[in-house]
Amino acid sequence: MIQRAVVLSTGDEITSGKVLDSNSNYIADRLNEIGIDLVGVITVGDVPERLEWAWRTAMQMADVVISTGGIGPTADDLTTETIARITGKSLWRHEPSVEHMKRLFAALGRPMPENNLKQALFPETAEIIQNPLGTAPGFRMMVQQAGHTSHLVVLPGVPREMKPMLDQQVIPWLRANRGSEKIFATQVFQTFGISESGLDEAVAGLIRPDEAKVGFRASFPQISLKLMVEDYPGVAEKRLAELSERVRNRIGPYIYAEGDSTMEEVVAELLTRNRLRLAIAESCTGGLIGHRLTNVPGSSAFLIGDLVTYSNQMKIDLLGVSPDTLREHGAVSEQCVLEMAAGARARTQADVAVATSGVAGPDGGTPEHPVGTVCIGLVAEGVSTARRHQMRGTRDWIKLLTSQVALDWLRRYALGLPLGESVLFRR
Amino acid sequence: MIQRAVVLSTGDEITSGKVLDSNSNYIADRLNEIGIDLVGVITVGDVPERLEWAWRTAMQMADVVISTGGIGPTADDLTTETIARITGKSLWRHEPSVEHMKRLFAALGRPMPENNLKQALFPETAEIIQNPLGTAPGFRMMVQQAGHTSHLVVLPGVPREMKPMLDQQVIPWLRANRGSEKIFATQVFQTFGISESGLDEAVAGLIRPDEAKVGFRASFPQISLKLMVEDYPGVAEKRLAELSERVRNRIGPYIYAEGDSTMEEVVAELLTRNRLRLAIAESCTGGLIGHRLTNVPGSSAFLIGDLVTYSNQMKIDLLGVSPDTLREHGAVSEQCVLEMAAGARARTQADVAVATSGVAGPDGGTPEHPVGTVCIGLVAEGVSTARRHQMRGTRDWIKLLTSQVALDWLRRYALGLPLGESVLFRR
Repeated sequence: MIQRAVVLSTGDEITSGKVLDSNSNYIADRLNEIGIDLVGVITVGDVPERLEWAWRTAMQMADVVISTGGIGPTADDLTTETIARITGKSLWRHEPSVEHMKRLFAALGRPMPENNLKQALFPETAEIIQNPLGTAPGFRMMVQQAGHTSHLVVLPGVPREMKPMLDQQVIPWLRANRGSEKIFATQVFQTFGISESGLDEAVAGLIRPDEAKVGFRASFPQISLKLMVEDYPGVAEKRLAELSERVRNRIGPYIYAEGDSTMEEVVAELLTRNRLRLAIAESCTGGLIGHRLTNVPGSSAFLIGDLVTYSNQMKIDLLGVSPDTLREHGAVSEQCVLEMAAGARARTQADVAVATSGVAGPDGGTPEHPVGTVCIGLVAEGVSTARRHQMRGTRDWIKLLTSQVALDWLRRYALGLPLGESVLFRR
Repeated sequence: MIQRAVVLSTGDEITSGKVLDSNSNYIADRLNEIGIDLVGVITVGDVPERLEWAWRTAMQMADVVISTGGIGPTADDLTTETIARITGKSLWRHEPSVEHMKRLFAALGRPMPENNLKQALFPETAEIIQNPLGTAPGFRMMVQQAGHTSHLVVLPGVPREMKPMLDQQVIPWLRANRGSEKIFATQVFQTFGISESGLDEAVAGLIRPDEAKVGFRASFPQISLKLMVEDYPGVAEKRLAELSERVRNRIGPYIYAEGDSTMEEVVAELLTRNRLRLAIAESCTGGLIGHRLTNVPGSSAFLIGDLVTYSNQMKIDLLGVSPDTLREHGAVSEQCVLEMAAGARARTQADVAVATSGVAGPDGGTPEHPVGTVCIGLVAEGVSTARRHQMRGTRDWIKLLTSQVALDWLRRYALGLPLGESVLFRR
């Protein structure tokens, strides 16, 4: 019965500060999802006595120890040897892993260095965890010491190899050995226009702690809400569906996606599906809206162009903004962004156009237009809307938040929703 | 004499995977710079007995324990109480810290909640570490237990508060108590156009391990090389200057900055200083070059505009690319990017213009133009250069690398250097 875990993160590159350990965070998140208590994370460099201490300590503390790193081909990769020494097991060579490595090297057209054979050595009783993307397979084994049973799970340190191994081979096994017939059913909502504490408040009265675990993750511009229901198969899903419906009824207008989609992916999908061709006119965001949308594969299906008119003269020459507008209202005005959007739309024959203009700071603010003043406009057939926002924060934050509002407007437009007032955040 | 450290990272938000612990990496890097051996990192949640175990363990392992988190105002902030309990000290209230908090709340126009007073409680003998940016001050204290002296350093978990406290109040103190009269003199070089292993090779024969510690950090597009010389004051700086000169002589063409500047900051500085006005014409990079340059405050001094012409028709209409060129050479061609750059320059009356066009993938590749084919062009008075690259990697990687080459060309142009062949990287 596996209920408590320790994560062991090894490598001089981590203790020297050269590499940020993102693996532990990933594993912690996955363990949390399946209801396994992460007692702690221990990180040590590639020093034999420290590794040995870390393994012994972790094994005492937990039912399962999940380690990353230290199973490469070089002399400072010590994880397997350390475990063999502690547990008194000898090492044997797993021939299918040798074959797998040979195939990988052959695919690269390179001979396999002799020292890679080390990666096919495992302690007796170990079960191999396949590594489809790299040369170092992982393994797991059960150890009994001082009357306590612990399971050891050894994974590589390279995140792109570690993550699928964890997700596909370790998490299902852990879930099956939690000592509970219950499962976790999860649902994620991506939101915009409501702060994390606002979400917390909105959901607090809605879902009792015994009905579901509620998690928030605010990595702006992604602010997500996760529901986790623990119950028997068949029941958990039903209860989750009911709770999800409650959430939709309460905070529906703020939800832009269910699942892991980003705002730009949602917008790209909506514009493509509705065959809406888009033009962008950016000033203060400087290309960020275009950049985000072109991160989505296939964006050429809907994006005609993005005119980043940083100077006033360009707003006049390229977008046809009237010099009178600039003189009377200034570049940071509802009138200006409307003319920018209308101009971009006309020149590109797009169906819909968005425009931004503002003071991203840290300099350039005036009493009338302090840093953080941003205007956003959207123009389409029968639609011509602009709004002024007062944002707070650093330059990159103001750019990011402005781009998010503009994308949210495109989403709302494509769905036929009112463009609506956005709640803005302060970092 | 402080030689060995343990970092203690606390908080349920970390063990639940909600927050990625970037503090430990930052502290590890700083400790490495001043030659203090980081024995390990221990992470636990806000559970009294786990915190107590972590502190006791860390104190046994190290001369200094640096902890982050657990000093906020709420009930699950347990660090100070845990230390008081372990060390048998009582808590006293530090009145200047109370005054500091009151001032912070007054500046926000809010009353100070009563529970914030908890943050002004410290164990006897603690010395306060000021927190100019937040309400929770840190502290340090010396503890003798079982014949071993250890120093405890307690810092808040919020990175923007923790980092300056560490840099300004903890690192200088650690440096002074390393038990060595020697100091570390450091120099950082930012490079582009050479891989990490290429850098390693180039420097390997140049600097002996006993002359300086050489560190690499590859967080693309930043690939940096750091020299650290440990010696007596006055001597260390001289030796560093001599070694830095050797590095410049060997890899000079690849160095775009000394210190922490980004490529976009260097380009912005050069264009501004030389009063060069810039226009950009982007296709495959989709706005990323404009976005990166407008992240630099004051970019309106040199950037006129950025025409993201994603469709062929826009390349014709907005930039004046000839339909014949598109028909004969295609949009991904040296001829096309030259016409794009020339068109952008002419329409904006810029001094210099860069243009990009390519296949960022994952779809859209052809036998003639596989994914990763990218053309970059630069046009200025008397200059008209374009080059085709074959890159490998994901869509975001190809966009990023293309933007980096284009920025590097602008840097070279502004410095009067040959645009040169770039070594490209594979992720």
